[in-house]
Amino acid sequence: MHFDLLVSDDKSNARAGLLHTEHGSIETPIFMPVGTAGTVKGVHQQELRDDIEAQIILGNTYHLYLRPGLKVIERAGGLHQFIGWERPMLTDSGGYQVYSMSGSRKIVEEGVRFQSHIDGSYHFFSPEHAIDVQRTIGADIIMAFDECTPYPCPYDYAERSMHMTHRWLDRCIEQMNQTEAKYGYEQALFPIVQGSVYKDLRLQSAEKIASCNAVGNAIGGLSVGEPDDELYAMTDLVCGVLPKDKPRYLMGVGTPVNILECISLGIDMFDCVMPSRNARHGMLFTWDGIINIKNQKWEFDFSPLDSKGKAYVDQVYTKAYLRHLIKCKENLGIQIATIHNLAFYLELVKEARKQIIEGTFALWKEQMIPKLSNRL
Amino acid sequence: MHFDLLVSDDKSNARAGLLHTEHGSIETPIFMPVGTAGTVKGVHQQELRDDIEAQIILGNTYHLYLRPGLKVIERAGGLHQFIGWERPMLTDSGGYQVYSMSGSRKIVEEGVRFQSHIDGSYHFFSPEHAIDVQRTIGADIIMAFDECTPYPCPYDYAERSMHMTHRWLDRCIEQMNQTEAKYGYEQALFPIVQGSVYKDLRLQSAEKIASCNAVGNAIGGLSVGEPDDELYAMTDLVCGVLPKDKPRYLMGVGTPVNILECISLGIDMFDCVMPSRNARHGMLFTWDGIINIKNQKWEFDFSPLDSKGKAYVDQVYTKAYLRHLIKCKENLGIQIATIHNLAFYLELVKEARKQIIEGTFALWKEQMIPKLSNRL
Repeated sequence: MHFDLLVSDDKSNARAGLLHTEHGSIETPIFMPVGTAGTVKGVHQQELRDDIEAQIILGNTYHLYLRPGLKVIERAGGLHQFIGWERPMLTDSGGYQVYSMSGSRKIVEEGVRFQSHIDGSYHFFSPEHAIDVQRTIGADIIMAFDECTPYPCPYDYAERSMHMTHRWLDRCIEQMNQTEAKYGYEQALFPIVQGSVYKDLRLQSAEKIASCNAVGNAIGGLSVGEPDDELYAMTDLVCGVLPKDKPRYLMGVGTPVNILECISLGIDMFDCVMPSRNARHGMLFTWDGIINIKNQKWEFDFSPLDSKGKAYVDQVYTKAYLRHLIKCKENLGIQIATIHNLAFYLELVKEARKQIIEGTFALWKEQMIPKLSNRL
Repeated sequence: MHFDLLVSDDKSNARAGLLHTEHGSIETPIFMPVGTAGTVKGVHQQELRDDIEAQIILGNTYHLYLRPGLKVIERAGGLHQFIGWERPMLTDSGGYQVYSMSGSRKIVEEGVRFQSHIDGSYHFFSPEHAIDVQRTIGADIIMAFDECTPYPCPYDYAERSMHMTHRWLDRCIEQMNQTEAKYGYEQALFPIVQGSVYKDLRLQSAEKIASCNAVGNAIGGLSVGEPDDELYAMTDLVCGVLPKDKPRYLMGVGTPVNILECISLGIDMFDCVMPSRNARHGMLFTWDGIINIKNQKWEFDFSPLDSKGKAYVDQVYTKAYLRHLIKCKENLGIQIATIHNLAFYLELVKEARKQIIEGTFALWKEQMIPKLSNRL
């Protein structure tokens, strides 16, 4: 796996590149739809490929480990085979899910003991185990096992946690070196920068991560409730340290505005549940702003869902029809809104990439920001 | 609207025909997927058309009247326009929904007062109102307002109810004659035979319905809990009275076996929630029998969902993957199972039609019956 940095914008830190994996190449900047339990909720794999034009999707190690479990995935020949997705995949390490279930887990130096949200059973993840599990799941890109600190987070805790995450990283790398890919294609480990919102910690962590010389690097511990200013400041700082010739993945971000701002700061890869989760509540992202389709104003609006949208759902369904479906909690409404939002996110990063290549990104971004956050 | 009876089987009462509507012709025998609230749950309109190959779908007057309401449907230009479905549609009259909510409705000669399941508000449907509402919804085929009797049903009640249904039918026909279609294409009213499981009542009701000289005729009040023997006996009896040159619609039926048996008795049109509802619980209908995909035996079965199935879901997804999705209550699992089941039902009636035309239906049906009810 390797990354070709194709174009660096001269008016911002935005970049356009190509990340080559054995399941195909990924045009960066890219957004990765989240497929928690081996499915992007409510979306067929062919819709993901042909309508949304996803180039890489995410799986969640924690969820897949619990269901269907490693035996099933291994006997299927890995997650790609199991779900029928031929393009690249990335799995998180389970660290974020562990963070988000604060009541039912215990973190110690050796690893994390947690309780299944399904049956209450106890499980233990160590850095080594997180690597073994991700070897079995078989994503192209796998993530180091880290602790994602909450926001706000006391300095002392953030510092101790960061050091532990660094020690865990060393153990992950060691485990990667001692094991092999199970399905005949390469898996690359991305280490994760932590350090909460503290500049010195972020710099220290970025130096550590940069020193690992990984195929790509990630920034974690953001998009956990901090103000956008902090998100951008930390991202900017870390991008200044992470190597230019490696892709940079900002985990869990964000709104369309967040994505354009962070592309501008030098981020190449994003994932977020927002487009799919908010779709389920009737929130649509468009080039003209944000639509809450439940609002009365759309009741008699028989215009296409999104006249500027390129997904078929944008043209064949109307706002009034989607409103009806979402109000009735009909699955088709969720499906339509999810395809729309994910297709929009992919269109957004595709257009950003085009603007970067054409040298017009910075100006274009400034024009887009106020539109994208507009409430329609 | 008119019906061409093309072939009558000489070893059974099965028939093959063509029902012509202004939204296209329907090859009979046909199965009509149920799209309760303007959506076949979890299925995109293009999947319904291209993958399931539905030729006509059903809408439920009761549900559509409550949500999105008549104003929205009328301003959209009718239900076809509102949901984006260009092929024929049929609406029930609301009678069945009223039957199934026995606790919150009151039936009198004038009509039915009922309470909304959504907000508890009170509404009144008369035969005239049921016609007006269906004029506004705008389906090609609309149904007479009837009372669907429960099973078991005392003779006295069934008799009184049948006579009221007949009087309501006269009022429906009168209202049809006094009103016009709203959207420029013809709507045909199908009257409904009632009479519970009493031969004399069924014969009397069939005579009444036959005398109306409608474009097509329906049999209601079955598939409400009676044994299959009663279903077949009543269907056989009524088919003997209803005119041969008009399509016969058996409402709410049934399993694949029920459908083949009733085609053999002379039925041309079917609808049932079974393929879509049971899909949501992981029950799949196939040419080899019934699969409960939740069973452990499918956990490691990485073979295609249905090797004999013609829908794309049958070939691109595996049994083990669908099992995982259904066990996790993932919407995609419901979507896959629903497309499979509906495509199978459409394939079943298409094959039956082919066998009727080739003169091999009776033999083929006898070979199919044991297979279709087999539990895999």
